[in-house]
Amino acid sequence: MQTPHGRVQTPAFAPVGTRGAVKAVTHRDLLGLGAEIILANTYHLHLRPGAPLVGRAGGLHRFIGWDRPMLTDSGGYQVFSLGDRRRIDEDGVSFRSHLDGSLQRLTPESASDIQAQLGSDIAMAFDECASYPVSEADARDSMERTLRWARRGRRRFLDTGEHPSSLEGEVTNAGQAQFGIVQGGVYKALRDESARETVSIGFDGFAIGGLSVGEPPEVMYDIVEHTTPMLPDNHVRYLMGTGMPDDLVECVARGIDLFDCVLPTRNARNGQLLTQHGPISIKRAQFAEDHRPPDPECACYTCRRFSRAYLRYLFVAGEMTASTLNTLHNIHFYLDTMRRIREAIVLGSFDTFRQRFHETFSRRP
Amino acid sequence: MQTPHGRVQTPAFAPVGTRGAVKAVTHRDLLGLGAEIILANTYHLHLRPGAPLVGRAGGLHRFIGWDRPMLTDSGGYQVFSLGDRRRIDEDGVSFRSHLDGSLQRLTPESASDIQAQLGSDIAMAFDECASYPVSEADARDSMERTLRWARRGRRRFLDTGEHPSSLEGEVTNAGQAQFGIVQGGVYKALRDESARETVSIGFDGFAIGGLSVGEPPEVMYDIVEHTTPMLPDNHVRYLMGTGMPDDLVECVARGIDLFDCVLPTRNARNGQLLTQHGPISIKRAQFAEDHRPPDPECACYTCRRFSRAYLRYLFVAGEMTASTLNTLHNIHFYLDTMRRIREAIVLGSFDTFRQRFHETFSRRP
Repeated sequence: MQTPHGRVQTPAFAPVGTRGAVKAVTHRDLLGLGAEIILANTYHLHLRPGAPLVGRAGGLHRFIGWDRPMLTDSGGYQVFSLGDRRRIDEDGVSFRSHLDGSLQRLTPESASDIQAQLGSDIAMAFDECASYPVSEADARDSMERTLRWARRGRRRFLDTGEHPSSLEGEVTNAGQAQFGIVQGGVYKALRDESARETVSIGFDGFAIGGLSVGEPPEVMYDIVEHTTPMLPDNHVRYLMGTGMPDDLVECVARGIDLFDCVLPTRNARNGQLLTQHGPISIKRAQFAEDHRPPDPECACYTCRRFSRAYLRYLFVAGEMTASTLNTLHNIHFYLDTMRRIREAIVLGSFDTFRQRFHETFSRRP
Repeated sequence: MQTPHGRVQTPAFAPVGTRGAVKAVTHRDLLGLGAEIILANTYHLHLRPGAPLVGRAGGLHRFIGWDRPMLTDSGGYQVFSLGDRRRIDEDGVSFRSHLDGSLQRLTPESASDIQAQLGSDIAMAFDECASYPVSEADARDSMERTLRWARRGRRRFLDTGEHPSSLEGEVTNAGQAQFGIVQGGVYKALRDESARETVSIGFDGFAIGGLSVGEPPEVMYDIVEHTTPMLPDNHVRYLMGTGMPDDLVECVARGIDLFDCVLPTRNARNGQLLTQHGPISIKRAQFAEDHRPPDPECACYTCRRFSRAYLRYLFVAGEMTASTLNTLHNIHFYLDTMRRIREAIVLGSFDTFRQRFHETFSRRP
């Protein structure tokens, strides 16, 4: 995948830096781990520090000091997660800031404009993400609104590209791409319609949204398998917000090129470390004098240098370094899994890799 | 300074890793910053995870994965900071754990034994640190008790060295050194007596304790200036718990070889960053769109890569990365100050350095 800030090898995983920083690690840690792209969050950056400030700083890359590829979500998912604190109308969404309760508004146009000021390499169209479970009628309403919003968002994105001076604020990344988002819940007929129409709008890449919102993994796999063939294979196919390591393997098998997920970082801060055999909870007393590394087969800094006993102690003591070391390990695990997947694909042995991965890895230790 | 885990260039500053980790940074960050020695805390490690566990792990170096020099304080300062929660008798101190309220006890002998199991390169004798202000009579009592404890602690240390099997637990660093601590508050006659007697006990190095406890800097400088000439100049002279960068310069001028202090790390977490001109409080609104590095003359990762605007934003947003980047910078500032001091000494230009340092640096911006 080519971007104005460089190439990303796919299939790829983007660590999540919601507020312009991947929690508990530095950019140089991420570069050392081989991260080629990170994700930042339009909703959070819109509320603080605000797109105009970031625009005046020269864009998000310059503001946060990350000069590699960056993707911003559209804020849709976060806004819809606000529940009672938001109201949807045909034009957009009004909501109360989680920071100060102030009344805020996002529309397909403003989400495009904000991302133009942020200057991410990949901007996402503003979508409505249905919850789970959801009736087919409600899933249809939200899918159809997402399509109408996609057309408006795409028009605004193209207009701004042609006439940067039309934007109130700076366009900080002239080469920004915009991805559309396929919705439709777990209903294949809706996914069909959403995929067909979203593709016809002509985005630079395509995402599958509205999954990993509570449905069983098999349902998610089934919808991914059903949807990816309808997306052009010369464009990036991005599965938003997924998942556990075995999900990545299964969804690559179904055609996904790009992932993002908070699990490796959030779980690290909660003491869950990934190993080849599955996650372990480092806070458990059984690790108090376990002098092995978290994953004896892992080559990351944490595993080369520290024991389960020390990591357990740091976690129980509440030392910030616990979050850092756990996060380094989990991100390494995700990025290394993607490297192994890419290598297996190149070698023509992905099916064997996939089978062996599942023989070893189990979500329940 | 030679230790079983390598050489330390003096005058040196030891970042504080109270619980076996310097808060918000990793060991490799510290190595990258040029840290040659860190300090860990006997009191905290005694309560959790406990010296026996660390001993079984092979000592503190192996347990925490730091293979360079390490110093442990004796726990005296922490215990005396507990106020109501401790009771002193001639034999030692009983106190309530700040973690679980359990009744604990430290004596000159047990503080030596705990440090033998921790296996730091430099162990400190168990002392009584008087508060400030303190009457001369109380300062004398505490200084004299410190001397009696120093004799007991030294005897135990030497016994354990000769007969490691006499220790309940493992001796994990056969080459451990033990430093004595000079007390006596701000009373020069008491400092004289304490220094003379402590030196006569024959420790491997000598510390000045009981300063930086609230007295004005000039008083501190005066006591240091009075005390260091009484300590043998072929042994390390260590000023405990000091100070701001200008304190380091002034106390090197008065003969100090080794410092430790929580200020660079604690202040970093509170948003105070050091510059050549003095500290700045990064949370201030004036930095919201200040795109300069914290200190334009600084070569650290934080200053080479990030702006005051971004660091302010991260701090206000409560991102952990703010603590990491601020801590990296402040430790760099301290270690770089020590490097500049050492170089100036070698060049024979320390007096000029000292003068110019004070012309530029002010504690109050």
